[in-house]
Order: sequence, then structure tokens, then C-alpha cells
Amino acid sequence: MHTLQQLADLLGVPCPAGATKELATVSSLIDATPSDLSVLTSDKYVREYKKTHAGAVLASKKVKFSVRPDVPVLTVDDAELALVKVLEVMAPPIPHPAEGIHPSAVIDPSATVGANPHIGPHVVVGAGVKIGNNVRLHPGVVIGDDSTLGDDCTLFANVVLRERITLGSRVMIHAGAILGTDGFGYRWDGSKHAKVPQIGTVVVEDDVEIGSNTCIDRAKFNETRIGKGTKIDNLVQLGHNVRVGMHAILCGQVGIAGTVTVGNGVVLGGASVVRDHVHIGDGVMAAGHSVIADDVEPKMIISGMPAIAHRQNLREQGAIRRLPELMVELRKVQELIEKYRKAGLIQE
Amino acid sequence: MHTLQQLADLLGVPCPAGATKELATVSSLIDATPSDLSVLTSDKYVREYKKTHAGAVLASKKVKFSVRPDVPVLTVDDAELALVKVLEVMAPPIPHPAEGIHPSAVIDPSATVGANPHIGPHVVVGAGVKIGNNVRLHPGVVIGDDSTLGDDCTLFANVVLRERITLGSRVMIHAGAILGTDGFGYRWDGSKHAKVPQIGTVVVEDDVEIGSNTCIDRAKFNETRIGKGTKIDNLVQLGHNVRVGMHAILCGQVGIAGTVTVGNGVVLGGASVVRDHVHIGDGVMAAGHSVIADDVEPKMIISGMPAIAHRQNLREQGAIRRLPELMVELRKVQELIEKYRKAGLIQE
Amino acid sequence: MHTLQQLADLLGVPCPAGATKELATVSSLIDATPSDLSVLTSDKYVREYKKTHAGAVLASKKVKFSVRPDVPVLTVDDAELALVKVLEVMAPPIPHPAEGIHPSAVIDPSATVGANPHIGPHVVVGAGVKIGNNVRLHPGVVIGDDSTLGDDCTLFANVVLRERITLGSRVMIHAGAILGTDGFGYRWDGSKHAKVPQIGTVVVEDDVEIGSNTCIDRAKFNETRIGKGTKIDNLVQLGHNVRVGMHAILCGQVGIAGTVTVGNGVVLGGASVVRDHVHIGDGVMAAGHSVIADDVEPKMIISGMPAIAHRQNLREQGAIRRLPELMVELRKVQELIEKYRKAGLIQE
Repeated sequence: MHTLQQLADLLGVPCPAGATKELATVSSLIDATPSDLSVLTSDKYVREYKKTHAGAVLASKKVKFSVRPDVPVLTVDDAELALVKVLEVMAPPIPHPAEGIHPSAVIDPSATVGANPHIGPHVVVGAGVKIGNNVRLHPGVVIGDDSTLGDDCTLFANVVLRERITLGSRVMIHAGAILGTDGFGYRWDGSKHAKVPQIGTVVVEDDVEIGSNTCIDRAKFNETRIGKGTKIDNLVQLGHNVRVGMHAILCGQVGIAGTVTVGNGVVLGGASVVRDHVHIGDGVMAAGHSVIADDVEPKMIISGMPAIAHRQNLREQGAIRRLPELMVELRKVQELIEKYRKAGLIQE
Repeated sequence: MHTLQQLADLLGVPCPAGATKELATVSSLIDATPSDLSVLTSDKYVREYKKTHAGAVLASKKVKFSVRPDVPVLTVDDAELALVKVLEVMAPPIPHPAEGIHPSAVIDPSATVGANPHIGPHVVVGAGVKIGNNVRLHPGVVIGDDSTLGDDCTLFANVVLRERITLGSRVMIHAGAILGTDGFGYRWDGSKHAKVPQIGTVVVEDDVEIGSNTCIDRAKFNETRIGKGTKIDNLVQLGHNVRVGMHAILCGQVGIAGTVTVGNGVVLGGASVVRDHVHIGDGVMAAGHSVIADDVEPKMIISGMPAIAHRQNLREQGAIRRLPELMVELRKVQELIEKYRKAGLIQE
Repeated sequence: MHTLQQLADLLGVPCPAGATKELATVSSLIDATPSDLSVLTSDKYVREYKKTHAGAVLASKKVKFSVRPDVPVLTVDDAELALVKVLEVMAPPIPHPAEGIHPSAVIDPSATVGANPHIGPHVVVGAGVKIGNNVRLHPGVVIGDDSTLGDDCTLFANVVLRERITLGSRVMIHAGAILGTDGFGYRWDGSKHAKVPQIGTVVVEDDVEIGSNTCIDRAKFNETRIGKGTKIDNLVQLGHNVRVGMHAILCGQVGIAGTVTVGNGVVLGGASVVRDHVHIGDGVMAAGHSVIADDVEPKMIISGMPAIAHRQNLREQGAIRRLPELMVELRKVQELIEKYRKAGLIQE
């Protein structure tokens, strides 16, 4: 529970009447009950404010509306941003396995585990693994031999790390993600696809977050690398030897083929795919479902299939919408010329 | 084993000669052996009927063919539909963990488990979890703290539910699916992507089925919700705060970004993706691989990238097929006009 | 460690000066240290060779460059191919569970396990399962009742096989893959989507490799089948009754709907999708992200959405790039004709 006064203090704004009102959590204007704080971010939701049962509302100062006396308002510059601060204090703690090592976990005697481990039931930790301090391994996590985890890492249930994988500190990996699967490489030997050994590894730098059921393959040799602070959503596929820079954002179902480099701060919208060996420059933004088949210059905004400059893609899409009609018009021009010619109005 | 007579009775149709013939299972006309029932749904498979080794055949009455005396035929209005009834009686039972709680399962003492549980090896059930009657939890399932499962739920191997997830009754979740991962939300704080707490949950209503390795994220606040009777295929991604209505069908690899609403009875073809905040009206049908970037009116049939009315998309696709030739024709018109002008046939 | 002489002998090429030099592993020219062998496959990397710290380099004979005396060069016809041979001898062994059956594994008494098993912690093997010789089951693997595994199969962590699945010999399945989930089939019974029983199975022939978190559904009846030697990447979805031929390559995130047949030697690029009931002929190659909606003749090279002959797709894409400009030109032609008509230069 937080009082309205406490929230006003947190956000550094004046507290309206009702300072002792207690708020338990955050909810939308429509769903809120009197113990909820809600949020009003734009004029189009004023109608919902008029009917809300929220105990109080966080509103952006640009929104124009009449304050209801029964629903006090905390006015802030940017309600969306202020909401994040509120969520941070109101968020219920995420449950983790109890401190210690659950008796059903199987830890190889040659593995080392740092201070304050939270290792849950049915976890398996292989030979030579080095685990830092304050690491949480949820049930069913499997860590392959000779892997290394920095401090404060959290691996949710059933995450698998194959052998020789390296995680930095504060890495969070969501349930079901798989790191270090063999890269997908074969050569045709005349009668079959012979497997090309994938002797490299995966290195995940500090503060990376990796989504559920995402797959990151180990390198053919050297490493597949995810740069510091990069965030990866669910069901993403990263092939062998991919290198992603720092603070990139890869949305759900992105697929990146082998040996692609992705620059710092790149944002790839959901379900975008990147052809092998492509280089994506720093700061590129790709709309959802971009199909990136060629190198992309830094800071470009791209979209489409194949992905091109977003502005050009919009023009082409507009043109395609009118294409059937264009064909009719061209036919008319051709018929007109033909008619004139036949009528002798144009003589050759 | 079912006799031909039993199947005829099941389907409410007359039994042909051979009433005591015993049939063990269903197979295609090509693969069938004498103990198999097969199915003839259209004229184009009559050739296969002529050569089949099936013991008997289920045929739609619209199909024109000569009955072989050695392969008796059950004639029905719709063989495809009748087949479903036959499959229901012939299907071998799906194996589930034995009744009781396997000794290797780890059930928190504060969890409550209803009557007749089937909880398999290496399952983990967290604190405060409430499990209804007749629930089957296959090996490796992990249920996070304070989650609730209704009666008659089946969770196949290695399914993960994070904390505070709610399942209705008769929910079936296939192996490897993950519910309740944090929604993918960050804000750039000047030096890094700071994680926006995702304090909401996931609610799955009665009779929902969820495919293997599908991911359904928890809400930023409030809930991500899957409506009663909706069926979701494998490898689908649903972002935070998505709300899917009742009796929808989401085919394999569909991806839905945050805060999308999907109406009742909507069908999204395989690999379709939906941009965040889009509203899809009731009864919409989207062809496979639609890229849905804007709101869709109820009952529309859509396709394409971006998805538009299917009929319009077909016209545009047809026009694109002829586009290279169109360009040649336009060039000819331009040259003709130029020729006339140069020849003085058109004077300015 | 391998000496330069040993590697020269392996590749059947003359050994340069430095025959006793020891090389531990393979690395790129940029990342290599003196104990690494590196590789020079094309003229564009000669610059990197000039600066490399590699102990020795494997170079294709077509590459033109001056050999540095401190970095001896093994010259071969095709460095890429020779590299595979080197990787095969230098690859560190992939760790597997220890020989025997881990005490935490739960093996049904009616299951049979062949010679030399390597069954790791928390594995579950159901009733009636038959496991061949030299099989490795990594932690958390779950094998459903009455499934059969041939000799020398490797299933990485948390792989799930449902009941009655058949694997040939030397099948490798990567972590998190799920075989045998119910096919996605329903019929609308007037008030709900009634589940169509999926009584078939999945058969995986010899020497198949299946990627992480890939899903292969069981058949409605008969079988879903993956042909000998086929290789499937991560996060691929294969629907019920799909039949894939021999030696096919299905890249990451490919999605194949129900009852599709894929011929021998077919290559489907990453994220390609195939509509249900389509037949893809032998030897077809589809570029990444192809949307295959109709049958494809053998040996065609296709791309696009919908996928068409690759050459035609390139022409259309080129035309689309020029489409906005084309519209401007057509407008000019129309205006010109109108101008002439108004000026009386063309009389009707």
C-alpha cells in the first residue's frame, strides 16, 4: 500500500486533496477499483476518466479535462514515464527459489557456486561450471559443462545453457530459452549433409535480458555475442556467429541468420528477419516484419520486404494500392492512341 | 476394435454387407491395411479407392464411384465430419502420469491440490498454488507461486507457468509452452534500457488449448486474457496485455504485439503478425502470413503485407505479376508519342 | 593440440616451414592468437591476413597474397571445405551425461534400454518405450509411452517426445524440441471448436537432426514423417501429416502447415512458410522468407510473397522500386494527350 502523498513525493509533484488515500496497485481506467491508481495519458481517454472507479489518477499535464473531486489527480509532465516509477515501487516481488541449493538439484562436484545461491528443484549444473554470487536458477534449469555465470543472474524455469557458455552479470533469461545449440552448418559430401562441427561458444554481456523460448546458437568457431544491455524478446532465433551490439532491442520472433552483425542501439521490430552475413549499422530502426537482405547504413529507418528506406516503402505501398487502377488507365491511353491512328487523326 | 455395424450405428447410416468386419483404426486409402477404415471425401481420390487395401471406407454421398465388393462403404453426408466421430471412438487414450503425486515432484506445503491428481515426476508446484480436481501435470511442469488451475486441466511436459497465472477449467497446454513471462517493456533512461515492471498477470478462460512452445506474456498491469474456447497453435507469441476473445483460432507462429485486442471467433492464419494496439473485430479471418498493421472491421477477410481486404490484395497481386510487362508498354506509348512529335504528326 | 605437419597430412597438402608448430583451435583472422589456425577464403580478407596473430593459416589457392614468414600457410583447393576437416579433428568433445542411468531418472519398468546408455538427471522414460544402444538423453528429457529410439540417438536437455513416436538411428534432437504434440485440428460443432482426435504419430528416419524448440506435430492419422538425413533448424513448426523427404534442409523459423509434402533435397530458407496441402517437388530451393501458397515443380528456385520463380520475383521487385516514378510518367502521358486534344492537334 502507498498513500497518495507517498506517490506525490516519489514523483516530486504537489499532492492533491486526499493525501492519506491508500493505493495498492495500478490498473487501467476501465478496470480500476478504488484501491487502484490509474493513468490518463491522452485526451482520447478522458471519457474513461469520467467513468473510472480508480482511487486516484496519474495524468499528463497536456491532457485537458475536469478533475472529479472523488478521483484525485497527480499531474505530471509525462504520465507514461511517471507510471514506470510508480510500477517500480508497487511491483510485487518476483518469487525465486529459496536460498540455498534444493536437495533435488544435481550439481557436479567440480562446479563452483558463489555466495547466496537460490538454486531450485531439479536444476542440473555440469562439470567445471562457475556460478557467481546471488544467482537464481529456477526449476529445471540445465547448465552445461564449463559454462560461467556472473553475479546476480536469473535463469527462469527450464532454461538450457549448453557447454562453455559465458554470461556476464545481471543477465536475465526467461523460461525455456536455449543458449549454445550447435550452429546450423552442413556440407554436402556427395551422399549426405555432413555436420560441420560448431566449436565456438556464446558470450552474453552484462545486463542482457533474453525472452522465453528464444534460441541463440553457438559459433562455428569464436563466438556468438550479445552486447551489454541488449534486450531480446520471446521466440527469437540468432544463428551462429551473430554479433549484436550494446543496447539493441530485438522484438518477438525476430530471426537473424548466421554471421550477421547488429550495431549498437539497433531496434528490430517483431518478426523481422535478417539474411546471413548482413551488417546492420548503429542506431538502425526496422519496422515490424522487415526482411533485411542487404547491409543497412547507420541510423536508417527501414521497413518492407525486402526492407528499404521506410519513406520509400510507404510510397511504394501507396503506389501498389493504386496499381490495378493504373493498369486500367494505361489501357485507356493505349486505346486512345490506337483509335486516333485508325481514324487517321494521327498519320504515320 | 469396432465392427462395421458399430460404426454404422455410430454414424446413423445403413450397414453394408460385412457387418461383422472388425476395424482397428483409421488410415489413408494409400496406407490402409485390411484392419483399417479409410475415407473417400472427393472424386479426385476415387483412383486411390480402386487400389486401397482398406477393410472398409467412409464415403461422402456426393462422390461418384463403383463400390468394390471386398471394400464395403459407409455412405454419409459428409465423410470429413463423420470421420471425426469415428476418430473420437477409435482414438487410443492419451497417456497421462499415474494417479497421485510422483515422489520426485516438489509441491510447496502451502499449495492445495484437488481430488484425483495425476502429477508426474519432477513437477514443481510453488507456494500458494491452487489446483482443481482431475488435473494432469506431466513431467517437468513448473507452476509459479499463487497460480490457480481449474478442474480437468492438462499440462504436458515442461510447461511453465510463472507466478499468479489463472487457468479456467479444461484448459490444455502442450509441451514447452510458457505463460506469464514478463512483458517486453523498457524505457531508455539516458544510459540504458530500464526494465518497466510487469505487474499484471495472464488469465486463460475455460476450454482453451495452447500449443507447444507458445509464449503468452503477463500484462504490464491488469491482465493478458485468452477467451473461452479459443485454440492456439504452436510457437505463437502473445505480448503483454493482449486480449483474445472467445472461440478464436490462432494458427502456428502467429505473433501478436502488446495491447492488441482480438475479437470473438477471429481466425488468424499461420505466421500472421499483428502490430501493437491494433483492434481486430469479431469474426475477422486473416489468411496465413497476414501483416496486420491497422484496426480491422468485424467479419473482414484480409490478407497481405500490410493486410488489406483479401479481394483487393488478390487484384494487387495480379497487377504486380504483370508489372514488368506494364512498364514495357508504358515505354512504348512514350516512344510512340515522341515519334509522332518528331515526325510533325503531332504539332505543338 | 595438432602440429602443422599433422594438419598438412590430414589435408593431403605439403607442409610449409614450421611443421612442429602446435595449434589448439580455429579462429578468425581478426581474433586469432598464436595457438590458433585461421582461414583465408577470399581476396577480400588478405588485409586481415596481413595483421593476423594466427599461428598458421589455411588458404584457398585462388587467393592472391604474400605469405608472411611468421604465419605459415597451408594451401588447399578450397579452404572452406578443408576447414571442415580441421574442425572435425580439433572439435572439443561434446559433453554428454555419464554412462549409465542417473539415479534421479525415472524409467518405467516396462521400458527397455539398450547397451551403453547415457541417461542424465531427471529424465523420464514412459511405459513400453524401446531405446537402442548408445543413446544419450540429456537432463530433463521426457519420452512418452511406447516410443522407440534407434541406436546412437542424442536428445539434448528438455526435449519432449509424446507417446508412440519413432526415431531411427543417429537422430540428434536439440534442447527444447517437442515431437508429437496433437495436430491443430478442430471442427465447429455449433457452439464450440470440438477437438479432432489426432491418433497418428511422428516417424523420424535415420540421421535426421532437429533444432532447438522446434515443434513437429503428430498426424491426424497415419504419420508425420521426416526423411533420412534431413536437417531442421531451430524454432521450426511442422504441422500434422507433413511429409518431408530425404536430405532436405529446413532453416530457422520455417513453418509448414498440415499435410504438406516436401520433396527430397529441398532447401527452405529461414522463416519460409508453406500453406497446407501444398506439394513441393524434389530439389526445390526457396529463398529466405518465401511464402509458398501453391505446388512447386521440382528443382524450381523460388522467392517472394507469394513465392514465384526467383527470377520473376526479382523483376517484379525491380519494377516495384520504380513504381512511384512510373505513376508520374503515366500522368505526364495522359496530360500530354489531353493537351494535344484541347489544342486541336488531335481531332476526334
